[in-house]
Amino acid sequence: MPYRAPLIDLRFVLDHVAGFADVAATDRFAEAVPETVEAILTEAGRLCEETLAPLNRAGDMHPARLENGVVRTSPGFAEGYKAITEGGWVGIAADPAFGGMGLPMALATCVNDMMGSACLSLQLNPLMTQGQIEALEHHASDAIKALYIPKLISGEWCATMNLTEAQAGSDVGALRTRAEPLGDGTYAITGQKIFITWGDNDFSANVCHLVLARLPDGAAGTRGISLFMVPKIIPDDQGALGARNSLNVVSLEHKLGLHGSPTAVMQFDAARGWLVGEPHKGMAAMFTMMNNARLGVGVQGISVAEAAFQQALAYAMERKQGKTPLGSGAIIDHADVRRMLGQMKAEIFAARSIALACAVAIDMGRATGDAAWAARAAFLTPIAKAYGTDIGNEVAYLGVQVHGGMGFIEETGAAQFARDVRVTAIYEGTNGIQAMDLVGRKMMDGGEAAFRLIDEIEAGAEAARSAFPDLATPLWHAAEALRDGTEALLAQQGNDRNAGAVPYLRAFARVLGGHCHLKAALADASRADLARFHIRRLLPEHGALLAQVREGASGIYALTPEVLQA
Amino acid sequence: MPYRAPLIDLRFVLDHVAGFADVAATDRFAEAVPETVEAILTEAGRLCEETLAPLNRAGDMHPARLENGVVRTSPGFAEGYKAITEGGWVGIAADPAFGGMGLPMALATCVNDMMGSACLSLQLNPLMTQGQIEALEHHASDAIKALYIPKLISGEWCATMNLTEAQAGSDVGALRTRAEPLGDGTYAITGQKIFITWGDNDFSANVCHLVLARLPDGAAGTRGISLFMVPKIIPDDQGALGARNSLNVVSLEHKLGLHGSPTAVMQFDAARGWLVGEPHKGMAAMFTMMNNARLGVGVQGISVAEAAFQQALAYAMERKQGKTPLGSGAIIDHADVRRMLGQMKAEIFAARSIALACAVAIDMGRATGDAAWAARAAFLTPIAKAYGTDIGNEVAYLGVQVHGGMGFIEETGAAQFARDVRVTAIYEGTNGIQAMDLVGRKMMDGGEAAFRLIDEIEAGAEAARSAFPDLATPLWHAAEALRDGTEALLAQQGNDRNAGAVPYLRAFARVLGGHCHLKAALADASRADLARFHIRRLLPEHGALLAQVREGASGIYALTPEVLQA
Repeated sequence: MPYRAPLIDLRFVLDHVAGFADVAATDRFAEAVPETVEAILTEAGRLCEETLAPLNRAGDMHPARLENGVVRTSPGFAEGYKAITEGGWVGIAADPAFGGMGLPMALATCVNDMMGSACLSLQLNPLMTQGQIEALEHHASDAIKALYIPKLISGEWCATMNLTEAQAGSDVGALRTRAEPLGDGTYAITGQKIFITWGDNDFSANVCHLVLARLPDGAAGTRGISLFMVPKIIPDDQGALGARNSLNVVSLEHKLGLHGSPTAVMQFDAARGWLVGEPHKGMAAMFTMMNNARLGVGVQGISVAEAAFQQALAYAMERKQGKTPLGSGAIIDHADVRRMLGQMKAEIFAARSIALACAVAIDMGRATGDAAWAARAAFLTPIAKAYGTDIGNEVAYLGVQVHGGMGFIEETGAAQFARDVRVTAIYEGTNGIQAMDLVGRKMMDGGEAAFRLIDEIEAGAEAARSAFPDLATPLWHAAEALRDGTEALLAQQGNDRNAGAVPYLRAFARVLGGHCHLKAALADASRADLARFHIRRLLPEHGALLAQVREGASGIYALTPEVLQA
Repeated sequence: MPYRAPLIDLRFVLDHVAGFADVAATDRFAEAVPETVEAILTEAGRLCEETLAPLNRAGDMHPARLENGVVRTSPGFAEGYKAITEGGWVGIAADPAFGGMGLPMALATCVNDMMGSACLSLQLNPLMTQGQIEALEHHASDAIKALYIPKLISGEWCATMNLTEAQAGSDVGALRTRAEPLGDGTYAITGQKIFITWGDNDFSANVCHLVLARLPDGAAGTRGISLFMVPKIIPDDQGALGARNSLNVVSLEHKLGLHGSPTAVMQFDAARGWLVGEPHKGMAAMFTMMNNARLGVGVQGISVAEAAFQQALAYAMERKQGKTPLGSGAIIDHADVRRMLGQMKAEIFAARSIALACAVAIDMGRATGDAAWAARAAFLTPIAKAYGTDIGNEVAYLGVQVHGGMGFIEETGAAQFARDVRVTAIYEGTNGIQAMDLVGRKMMDGGEAAFRLIDEIEAGAEAARSAFPDLATPLWHAAEALRDGTEALLAQQGNDRNAGAVPYLRAFARVLGGHCHLKAALADASRADLARFHIRRLLPEHGALLAQVREGASGIYALTPEVLQA
């Protein structure tokens, strides 16, 4: 069942839910006129449907492998990568001064959405590169920018981020990789990094590793960490490739999914590196890269959900099983199958709307310099990441369920979606860490960004009250409950607040999703049924979620290790 | 991290939650005195810990395979099977007249629970045989009983159930396999069956297939189906094996999980079969087998949840990640990790309690002949199956999440639990079908079985009001809401009722689970914290679930295929 790019939905969300018109009205993104948007989406959609989607099964069945220190990628991936780079898609949001298209993040997000549906394993590669480009744009010296960014945008070189070490996962500050000054302005990087996505490949001329390491005078913890560019092959000032650097791939992981994406253990043995940004300020630079990547990973969840939904819907319409309630003979007639499909579509629409609203906020923050937009982007990023990847997993689960017994058979492909998407709820900060970020750092404004969104949700409900009273009323009440829950959360400290972080994030996404659906219904009445499904069937969950928020931590910590082991 | 049999929890649930004392007080099960129960559980637990659990990874990494028509099982499985049979575990609940132990289903369920944790792929084999034994006990002629049951109990022969065909999955009535009388009282069975669990093996002398097929005068649909015993090798009247029957394994499926369990496509080419039960009454006999198997599959979900929980808990206590809120340095200190572990344990306790309450009801129905017990068993079976396997999947998901990035790496084993358990929500009737069974057939009594349980839940809450007011009050209100929801459901017909079936089943499990936790707290105050976690954090979900029940089908069917495709 071939993937079909959801061009209509993407355009609709941009135009009627996420507020893309505001972005196109700025000077910075004046080029993003409707014709350009249409052309970009259509062209990217065609690439995804025709070239990338056919690679997805091959990547799963023929994983990337390590042969004599060289990573051999899955069949067709080299050609797929070439097609991505030739379309200029790596640099869609990158600075035109270096060869990028300079288009809004909202458009880049739409393109990533489609690429992730088509072939998530391969899409991870340019996603990593996009994150590195952004980190370099913000933090690197002019010389490094000029040397690396054009090659990354053109796709001649690929990029990775090297954070994790065996003893330093979520706790990045525990890393042990060292950087010794060589006296010529460069550094010798030594250490081992794990879980390095696309740590190497056999289709790009170079691989540019951004590596977190500690200088000799670096403090313990995160404040003593610096960031280094450590290329696989050392370029001269003009970008001509010279000697191989002293780094290599030790092994590739045997993973539940994403078999086409080589996940490497990387060894750096006094590899030559160049400082990016200020000494000891590596975490700040890495956060730039990670914030971009967090939205990108949230979209990966939506991508897989979309692909899983399309396949499940096609299966449900084709699969005949005797008499069915509506007489078609296909299982889509069964109320519970229809319910599952409705839930899948409603969640995808809500998550995509939130992700694109986040991207629009990023774009508006950049284009206008308005701190309120930046605050909104910061607030929405962990929601987009965690909710997008949670529903990615839930929708892929339902996709298997709609297939019945066939869903458990690998040839069907439904199970691959569930396997591939699993890690998106873990990498780039687990969804638990996203939630702690939301209720911690992102509410240090006293909840201002949260309350502004809640105000908008309530205003939206008011505006819809005459057209859709059965939707506007429950949504307004849910927003009020969310306001109360937010105040309760803000009154909590530390562990109490963290204990409710995951339910709070989900409750926020539920209510915000209802808002997006209602906006959609107001803009196009044919979307009211999906909005009704979301608001009347899924939204009520917010009550139970907010009840958990109010519970605080004591009941959780009462379950001591001894109680849990009993 | 080795599996540890949860002997204390199993004993506690039997004695203080599920009402096993009533079973032991019957004449039929008078042998099930505490010493016997203790000995059975201890012995089975040792087998699971020492012999079966070490096979689990090998089964995953070295799947059963088909070589020249012969199924080669995973390394160690033959020895594991031998150990199961030597312990007499296949026939734990079978009729002593044929060599069974004749013990209650509640005890058999505890043993299956542990075996499923240790090695689900292998446990499926005796589970199938147990189901066949029960079907034969109820429906077969004395000659077939005498010939087959002792060999199945001893484990000399294994058993399968052959229902599904490519075009006949959930719609069994669409099957095309034919049975032609041969004139000597036997039949020639011809057709192809798919998804045949343990369709063959290399460690039992024979494989006894129970096959659904249609006689020449059989009506279309389920009313024209008959059941046949079709052995792989044809025995004489004394059980001595003679000629090979004309059936074979065409292929084995490449599955998401349960790699150690060979799932076969079976071809029957005029294979010789013996009628079991009356002509055209095959579905009734099959339902006997399936009802047994449904509880068994529900327990499989609990089994995997238990194993996944144990591993995640051990990991969370060992994994150090910098400063943690309680200062231990291990990630179990983090509120959200603790929350996940608490949810895992609370769900396992609730699901195990419900499964054992169902088993007790089966035992009481058999021992007393009281229709009310049989009605309770029938009502609880779909709940035990669907809720047990739903939480099996949810807990395994959380188990991966607790492991962070390591959870995505296959060597860790956390992902295998998630892959293995996935199909339990699908086979033996998808969980959607379980829910339709609950709100349909199981409520043809006008809700009597449901209301009797709700009455007990409310009485339990009343009894706990002084000891645990913060638990008894919300539980009592939840039971009242469930009563109202049940009445609302009973007022619905057809599609409207089916549309709310899955949320209704879950709501019932939520409230019933709260009841079980509260009983546990009353019996042992050290269990109050887990009960509090369940009642205050998980139970509130029932409101949103019952809201879905009230919505009926119209909002679901408004999402037409055209709307879903848009």
